[in-house]
Amino acid sequence: MLHTTRQRLISTAMQLFHEKGYTSTSVADLLKAADVSSGSLYNFFPGKRELLLAVLEVYRNRMRETLLDPAWRGVSDPIEKIFRLLETYREMLVETDGIYACPVGSLALELHAPDPTIRDQLGAYFTAWTDAIHGCLIEAGSRLRVSVDRLGLAEFVLTTMEGAVMQARTFRDVGYFDRAVDHLRNYFDLLLYDRAALPAHVRQALPGR
Amino acid sequence: MLHTTRQRLISTAMQLFHEKGYTSTSVADLLKAADVSSGSLYNFFPGKRELLLAVLEVYRNRMRETLLDPAWRGVSDPIEKIFRLLETYREMLVETDGIYACPVGSLALELHAPDPTIRDQLGAYFTAWTDAIHGCLIEAGSRLRVSVDRLGLAEFVLTTMEGAVMQARTFRDVGYFDRAVDHLRNYFDLLLYDRAALPAHVRQALPGR
Repeated sequence: MLHTTRQRLISTAMQLFHEKGYTSTSVADLLKAADVSSGSLYNFFPGKRELLLAVLEVYRNRMRETLLDPAWRGVSDPIEKIFRLLETYREMLVETDGIYACPVGSLALELHAPDPTIRDQLGAYFTAWTDAIHGCLIEAGSRLRVSVDRLGLAEFVLTTMEGAVMQARTFRDVGYFDRAVDHLRNYFDLLLYDRAALPAHVRQALPGR
Repeated sequence: MLHTTRQRLISTAMQLFHEKGYTSTSVADLLKAADVSSGSLYNFFPGKRELLLAVLEVYRNRMRETLLDPAWRGVSDPIEKIFRLLETYREMLVETDGIYACPVGSLALELHAPDPTIRDQLGAYFTAWTDAIHGCLIEAGSRLRVSVDRLGLAEFVLTTMEGAVMQARTFRDVGYFDRAVDHLRNYFDLLLYDRAALPAHVRQALPGR
């Protein structure tokens, strides 16, 4: 029962922080929505900040089962996995009329000067996300030009997702997301371009890269 | 004098919204920091929301003189202008220890469900920004492959800037910004690749694009 109350507080906080933002969500909002007394809240969390830390930890710990595994079901090609994950964010935008997609990105920009512990949690989420993409890029092996900085490229996928979500949200138009992903796809196509498959005389005529 | 008070309210709001966020800034904070009475505030703005609208309008109207003109002084190459502008954001991150860069992007993600008027103002800022980049891409003319969607690419530059700022802020590490810009530069290099300059037999051996 105590365990359940704690979970209900976390899932309520997750929803409210996502919908209203962290700053706009009051402790009273949380207690009312979770149907919990303030004594119960403080039994588990000294305050809203600690509840935020718990929310961020859950996002990270459940990334595999709630985000990656569903997105990658039936997809074996590592490059397609990356674009399938982006498609998941697209679906979240479409389902919510362009309002919600990446709750952690929103929190990262909402919290202007978060304390080091909160920043560590936000950063750990981003790192876990890019690590998953990095794994796909390593799996892609020699299909990617050897000169490509794979970890930097994984971060660039996150860059694209977050920047594209920001524009799609602002304009309430998923077209902004789609055009950004089109350019990322085009970039990948160019990086995957297999010069080794070209005849030697063609290769030599190309700019060095 | 009345004019000055209005301007002081706007510049104070600009600073506080940027440093603390819009939601965390109270009307009392604004009055104190601007050294203005509540009567004076309400003389110019019905509330905090209208002050935000005025702030967003100033950001957009002054983009040319405060952002683009200083960034582009002495730079004539249109592609270099784009990367020079990104360098300006890098400098803002470095000067503020990785905290501040794009105030409008932060507001766009902080305001979870802004009303249509605020969204229009946020969108108008993004559109003015991408229009400036779009102008550079048009100026680049035939250096860009003809198949490139220039307006989409201009949006992709904004996508990269905003996503990269988000990560650099979270990690307080400008390296995240730099690596994203490196990948954007690499993408541009590939798009600028001049196939028309290659011998016909080499061109024919390349994948169609």
